[in-house]
Amino acid sequence: MSRKLVECVPNYSEGRRERVMDAIVAPFRDRPGVHLLDHRADPDHNRLVVSLVGEPEPIQESLLESARTAVDAIDLRVHTGAHPRIGAVDVIPFVPVRGITMDECVSLARGFAERYARATGVPVYLYEHAALRPERRKLENVRRGQFEALVREIANPERTPDFGAPVIHPSAGATAIGARPFLIAFNINLQSSDINAARDIARAIRASGGGLSHVKAMGIELAERGMVQVSINVTEYRVNPLHEVLERARAEASRRGILVAETEIYGLVPAEALVATAEHALQLAGFNASQVLDLRLLDLMEKA
Amino acid sequence: MSRKLVECVPNYSEGRRERVMDAIVAPFRDRPGVHLLDHRADPDHNRLVVSLVGEPEPIQESLLESARTAVDAIDLRVHTGAHPRIGAVDVIPFVPVRGITMDECVSLARGFAERYARATGVPVYLYEHAALRPERRKLENVRRGQFEALVREIANPERTPDFGAPVIHPSAGATAIGARPFLIAFNINLQSSDINAARDIARAIRASGGGLSHVKAMGIELAERGMVQVSINVTEYRVNPLHEVLERARAEASRRGILVAETEIYGLVPAEALVATAEHALQLAGFNASQVLDLRLLDLMEKA
Repeated sequence: MSRKLVECVPNYSEGRRERVMDAIVAPFRDRPGVHLLDHRADPDHNRLVVSLVGEPEPIQESLLESARTAVDAIDLRVHTGAHPRIGAVDVIPFVPVRGITMDECVSLARGFAERYARATGVPVYLYEHAALRPERRKLENVRRGQFEALVREIANPERTPDFGAPVIHPSAGATAIGARPFLIAFNINLQSSDINAARDIARAIRASGGGLSHVKAMGIELAERGMVQVSINVTEYRVNPLHEVLERARAEASRRGILVAETEIYGLVPAEALVATAEHALQLAGFNASQVLDLRLLDLMEKA
Repeated sequence: MSRKLVECVPNYSEGRRERVMDAIVAPFRDRPGVHLLDHRADPDHNRLVVSLVGEPEPIQESLLESARTAVDAIDLRVHTGAHPRIGAVDVIPFVPVRGITMDECVSLARGFAERYARATGVPVYLYEHAALRPERRKLENVRRGQFEALVREIANPERTPDFGAPVIHPSAGATAIGARPFLIAFNINLQSSDINAARDIARAIRASGGGLSHVKAMGIELAERGMVQVSINVTEYRVNPLHEVLERARAEASRRGILVAETEIYGLVPAEALVATAEHALQLAGFNASQVLDLRLLDLMEKA
């Protein structure tokens, strides 16, 4: 049987104190079954984003250890930063990577949420695919009003946490734990400095504007390059493949007389997403991912 | 340090006797460091093609064991088949896969050739990147006239083997051992039944016709589908990426009023080749293979 691998992207409300961040990340290093793929802090956001991949059990152990450090070291009552947050450990999403389904990640997230609330005393909201209440599928609903509002509202029936007592942790707030598909950050740079055009194109291609169902997008300026960008999150690349997103954006740009200069993928992308684009570009018929040598190797190594 | 992985695709002159083929393949099964990816026999060709990937040392050990069986069981004097061949073990190419360069595969092929000739008594010709004589880079030159001609010509100075005595092995002939890049079998099916058009397109895109430098192609009929196909080997996909091959073939088809129906990849393809096509199709800038989650995992596992 092949190994189960999940990605986990815990976000911590600390992006400034190096010593605290080092201590938060330490439990993910040199731990069998856990690979630290990336960690990056943003001082303006005052936030640390860690990207891990590994097996469910050691991932959970390392998360609990890391969370205890964060809960001890971060005080939301004095925390300021540009990014919305409800807790010292703000969100913990589990993402299926290999040998594990979304349903299994939902079970994993819920089981972990129970352990987490018990171990840290921090109340937990389940979100996205792991949500127990439909309105909590959207993280923005869970985080509404941020820590400052939740201090008061957590006692209200509609804001009762899914695990833990309906009382905020005084310094560490609350945590959102969920399961979601792999998110691809895909940016399309336009040969234009017209920010309104970028915003219009973003609106036209995103779900909330009537565009592609699993696309979030906004127009932003790349001031130092004299360009504008449609900054995109593809939340379900199996439904909205990257080439479809690009084609849609290119058509919207084109009818405004704007060319696509280039695109970027920020961070990681599953091989499957690029293979799907190559299949489309090459008009491949009857192709199977087991024909990709490196993916076969990965399977063989996991089974070894 | 990451593990060195090579692909090896030994071809044996036996495609009919199941028991012999089983014995030839057996040394590649359940052997640490060796993965049997594929093996397929063609009774018309009377040939068995095995695809292995693994670490250089165990790959070589298993190859020697397998070759001894083939040399004992196959008699070229009574062998018939549609595919050209010089030996019971006809060719053994080594292909760099991960953590190993072409130069290292050349050394590997030459070192193995020496061991092989000594262990089996079969003379060896080095070919492609491992060739010691320029004309032997081309396998067709090494195989010229096949076993039947080589029996007489092996004593001629221009056909002296690179390892072993200049005497053919009476029953097992000779073996070509080489190093080459990964070969992609890429077929383009046309919405046409015009075999001459398929042949013309094949000629236009292949190196020997003045087309792409690392493309071999021929036009063939897919009788049962009422279609014709441009059947292609891309011998160096880094130089002639798949999307370039398709674009070139599409342009040639188009100016003959023919559309591309679909394409196929036969057998394995390195992730890198599809990632390059996706990069092209998506206009990706600044993309790095380490951003592909599954390739990162493969690196991490190899280092673990």
